[in-house]
Amino acid sequence: MPSRPPALISVDWGTSSFRAALAAADGSSIEEVAADKGALALGPAEHEAFLAAMVGAWKKGRPDLPIFLSGMVGARQGWVEAPYVPCPAGVSEIAAATLTIPTPLGRVLLAPGLSAVDARGAPDVMRGEETQILGALSASGRTDGLFALPGTHSKWARVEKGRILSFETFMTGEIFAALKEHTVLGRLMAETRVEGEPGGFALGVRAAAALERPGELLHAVFMTRTLGLFDRVAPGELAEYLSGLLIGAEILAGARGARSALIVGSPALAARYAQAGALLGVEFSPAPQNCAALGHLALLERIDAGA
Amino acid sequence: MPSRPPALISVDWGTSSFRAALAAADGSSIEEVAADKGALALGPAEHEAFLAAMVGAWKKGRPDLPIFLSGMVGARQGWVEAPYVPCPAGVSEIAAATLTIPTPLGRVLLAPGLSAVDARGAPDVMRGEETQILGALSASGRTDGLFALPGTHSKWARVEKGRILSFETFMTGEIFAALKEHTVLGRLMAETRVEGEPGGFALGVRAAAALERPGELLHAVFMTRTLGLFDRVAPGELAEYLSGLLIGAEILAGARGARSALIVGSPALAARYAQAGALLGVEFSPAPQNCAALGHLALLERIDAGA
Repeated sequence: MPSRPPALISVDWGTSSFRAALAAADGSSIEEVAADKGALALGPAEHEAFLAAMVGAWKKGRPDLPIFLSGMVGARQGWVEAPYVPCPAGVSEIAAATLTIPTPLGRVLLAPGLSAVDARGAPDVMRGEETQILGALSASGRTDGLFALPGTHSKWARVEKGRILSFETFMTGEIFAALKEHTVLGRLMAETRVEGEPGGFALGVRAAAALERPGELLHAVFMTRTLGLFDRVAPGELAEYLSGLLIGAEILAGARGARSALIVGSPALAARYAQAGALLGVEFSPAPQNCAALGHLALLERIDAGA
Repeated sequence: MPSRPPALISVDWGTSSFRAALAAADGSSIEEVAADKGALALGPAEHEAFLAAMVGAWKKGRPDLPIFLSGMVGARQGWVEAPYVPCPAGVSEIAAATLTIPTPLGRVLLAPGLSAVDARGAPDVMRGEETQILGALSASGRTDGLFALPGTHSKWARVEKGRILSFETFMTGEIFAALKEHTVLGRLMAETRVEGEPGGFALGVRAAAALERPGELLHAVFMTRTLGLFDRVAPGELAEYLSGLLIGAEILAGARGARSALIVGSPALAARYAQAGALLGVEFSPAPQNCAALGHLALLERIDAGA
């Protein structure tokens, strides 16, 4: 591997996981570490020690290397609260609200989350995704468009002239897990998919497209059970049906008629959304995997230019 | 209490509870017993002994008093499987498919469940509600209309000329519980409601009415969290918001534009649906509480007339 000088330590510290990269100036990872230690799982005095344990080795001999954090670590129940910045917000607004945390680890920066108000006046929030969107903008050279960030709490954001205008959260991933683990729907599901059996995912996506009234979703999820009861979907495909139904419904509501979106997420999740999108007429272009580091670099550049 | 002769022992034995009534010929309860022992919680050989323990005292000196069962007790994983009768089905079809279980308890009858196919060709099932609908028809003198049976798995049934034409299941109650107990939405909820604080229920119902695309429901549930985060809804009202949202969405999808429905359910649940219905232009008329016994009596009369 060619020796690239590190530009910063990029940390995406969410509710349930910690991911850090020693990043070069182009955003590429020199080294990476991860842990299942969410920012909300630690007590008030534990974040600094945990961070030091995870990235301390990268700091050796590099006292000036900045550590840039984003995600739920900046929530009220996290390490230090970084108040939400209201949308519209771009790199300037987010850089201006970035906090510096005094620690023996040298320069530690913490990006704020964003708040938005939806079409009906209800509030919404994100933490961490704003940084990934800045990174995706930087990587793609785009300044406008629709961004999908699927996951436990999927976010769909509208960007114009480099600023996030608005966004909406969809609890798709967490609702899928709650329905699978904690309702009758999981009972008939088998973990093992059998090769050659008709897939449940596309069936679920098509079921989502056929829904008319919002409450019909409360009915369509029950089909996970009845399609299994009547041997219409194999046990190994029932979770796929439920996944397709929820992801399909999310895409149609998130895209609101748009035909394309940039997707920021793991390759597996992006492939799943691309498959659903192909059935629904929404084309997903994948963003690079290092969006968090790219976002941190963009913020750092703005902060240092303004200093 | 005037002494009324018992006509049958009516048993509604569901997934999670057992309810029995010693019923007079007019369907009224002479005595009632209940237990948190669902039909699926017992092993193959345990149903008969449990039933004997619960209603055996009523049988003393009345060897000919029939015991009429309905609900999940007739499922494949229940006591004896009573195969689903396809819709349309009324008292004739259900009576014809009612099983007699040979036991030392005398005459034990078991009503079958119903199956239906929804507008998109997906199957649906009910067990127990068909008997309650027959009872509600018998009590109201109606032969047509829309019937709502709210609960863990709410059912909405369309009845014409005394026969259940079609029905749909909505997982409203079970989804509410799974979201409250097993997702981030429960975290900000307080159990205690504070008098005088603006109610969350109507807010949830109105949010349901404002939804356009089905997937927006996956977004609107997240507002349970953000309305709490931004102090827009009091902690004691957050569960009410979620309940109003899901019940409102269910009513709009179940009613499909109809302006009235007969509701079969506990007084507390019926009141909740009536409150939501008033905001949504759907009027609920309450059915009597003894619909199961009335349904069993109607079936017994048909069976004995045909014998």
